[in-house]
Amino acid sequence: MQEVIRVAVDAMGGDNAPGEIVKGAIEAVNTRRDIQVVLVGQQEVIAEELKKYTYEKDQIEIKNATEVIETAEHPVNAIRKKKDSSIVVGMNMVKQKEADAFVSAGSSGAVLVGGQVIVGRIRGIERPPLAPLIPTETGVSLLIDCGANVDARSSHLVQFARMGSIYMENVVGIKNPRVAIVNIGAEEEKGNALVKETYPLLKECKDINFVGSIEAREIPHGGADVIVCEAFVGNVILKLYEGLSSTLIGVVKQGMLSSLKSKIGAALALPALKKTLKSFDASQYGGAPLLGLNGLVVKTHGSSKAKEVKNSIIQCVTFKEQDINNKIKKNIVISETEE
Amino acid sequence: MQEVIRVAVDAMGGDNAPGEIVKGAIEAVNTRRDIQVVLVGQQEVIAEELKKYTYEKDQIEIKNATEVIETAEHPVNAIRKKKDSSIVVGMNMVKQKEADAFVSAGSSGAVLVGGQVIVGRIRGIERPPLAPLIPTETGVSLLIDCGANVDARSSHLVQFARMGSIYMENVVGIKNPRVAIVNIGAEEEKGNALVKETYPLLKECKDINFVGSIEAREIPHGGADVIVCEAFVGNVILKLYEGLSSTLIGVVKQGMLSSLKSKIGAALALPALKKTLKSFDASQYGGAPLLGLNGLVVKTHGSSKAKEVKNSIIQCVTFKEQDINNKIKKNIVISETEE
Repeated sequence: MQEVIRVAVDAMGGDNAPGEIVKGAIEAVNTRRDIQVVLVGQQEVIAEELKKYTYEKDQIEIKNATEVIETAEHPVNAIRKKKDSSIVVGMNMVKQKEADAFVSAGSSGAVLVGGQVIVGRIRGIERPPLAPLIPTETGVSLLIDCGANVDARSSHLVQFARMGSIYMENVVGIKNPRVAIVNIGAEEEKGNALVKETYPLLKECKDINFVGSIEAREIPHGGADVIVCEAFVGNVILKLYEGLSSTLIGVVKQGMLSSLKSKIGAALALPALKKTLKSFDASQYGGAPLLGLNGLVVKTHGSSKAKEVKNSIIQCVTFKEQDINNKIKKNIVISETEE
Repeated sequence: MQEVIRVAVDAMGGDNAPGEIVKGAIEAVNTRRDIQVVLVGQQEVIAEELKKYTYEKDQIEIKNATEVIETAEHPVNAIRKKKDSSIVVGMNMVKQKEADAFVSAGSSGAVLVGGQVIVGRIRGIERPPLAPLIPTETGVSLLIDCGANVDARSSHLVQFARMGSIYMENVVGIKNPRVAIVNIGAEEEKGNALVKETYPLLKECKDINFVGSIEAREIPHGGADVIVCEAFVGNVILKLYEGLSSTLIGVVKQGMLSSLKSKIGAALALPALKKTLKSFDASQYGGAPLLGLNGLVVKTHGSSKAKEVKNSIIQCVTFKEQDINNKIKKNIVISETEE
């Protein structure tokens, strides 16, 4: 018999909760029979949403949680005080092994804090990085770290590189992924203090395919599979990706609607164009895992719709099947102890 | 009589030197009678290029410089050893007041080092930032600093904000420009150590219109006129802007050529589209000034063509007319001394 994976889903988190979250959960269980989803949040609200859909009853559960953490709340305080919030309850399920994974579109800060405080780090992992997949010309790259842990040290970045490499190889299926560090030039002597300190350490790692520095210009061209950086820089890259893509697509549309001739052209070209632009749509790729925890936590965009929620849930299956956390323990924590 | 501005131009620097550089210089002097260009570099090579054009002889001079600094060379060594290179000779002209400005598409590192070592900082300015204009939905913003001076301190960033504000107000013509600091969230308590330290200092500056933090997502939307950050982050933003724009434009073209129907559409829509995309072409805006020096140094893209060279030369006129360096001395250096 096939092993079943249980995913706790924050039904109250994100701009489109609970509607799109519940819809995404339904789509996930209707796609795969080996997934059980536990919708965490206000029971009555969720039950009401569930009435809209048909699904196998043994694949969907509700776990009541009366409180909701808002995006504007201070993450540490919110996690400490709102013990009956969907985020705290869902994370506790992962901690207690009542769920294999927790997916949330809610407050990034609260998810990051909760991951560390409630689910807890794998022993030996210094910092759990948030690692979204970003679209490139040739496929996707893992951007690690985009979390809230700013002012990182070089030892953190080395662990990010190794965890990211394991994730890309086993979850995304890229053999021997190319690992690069974000820098302001290609030469080894370039960079700020952190990069200069980290570069030689990455070069020494025998278990990763370190290809050197990557300038931000090369990221969209698919210059590396695992893009290592500290969280401030990662956040800037991720947010600029979002902002610039939407701006440029807007500029393109505006350009094509500026004359009658171009309007006709736009009408003819748009269906094909939309298909291609879809490959640059981050929601295709589900959410960002918070790596290095005793369990899996996945953060999806605050603006997630059903499709992204569904993809984030399905992503958890590969993570469990590939036994990523044991690979992290074995390849990183044990090998570091031996050094 | 109109005042004439003398601009020394590095005829040997950049991927398209000397052809496009000389062409750009000719276009600049043929546009404005009040510009004199001194082409710095190998005399015979430049003279040969000049034969292709007609221009007023009193507007173009050649200053011989036998050596060329290559992009791959170590900047500090190159500036120290190649005394007869176009960069060193051109910068010495600014230092000796034989030229008002120096424009180069050559090695960024050498231009940044030369600016500090040869031209020299305005007394009281801690670091000269490199400040390119980047296109946005609503116009342009000044991204300050994108130089090679990584690991900045908060006092540097405060000076960047004030110099950037003066530049945008007087050279670009934005009244009371909005100044923001790049951050990973909008709240004052967000950010890394540098940003947290700088934020309250910027809030206290009475001579700038500080509007708080800006997330990278808002930069392309034109969320601020002066975008303050340290050089590593600035470099990442600038390079990602370039890389992502070219990738997305490529994706758009590919999408429009994917079927016969969309090809016909593309043929009709492309002229209008190109016109709109032009507003997102960085070469429209000339080069990036290196602010805070005893003279003006402008770095243009290594890949600059004639148009960008021309625009960079013309940009120097406004800089001089508006007496930017005296404004920097008066508003920043003197007011800091008084504090």
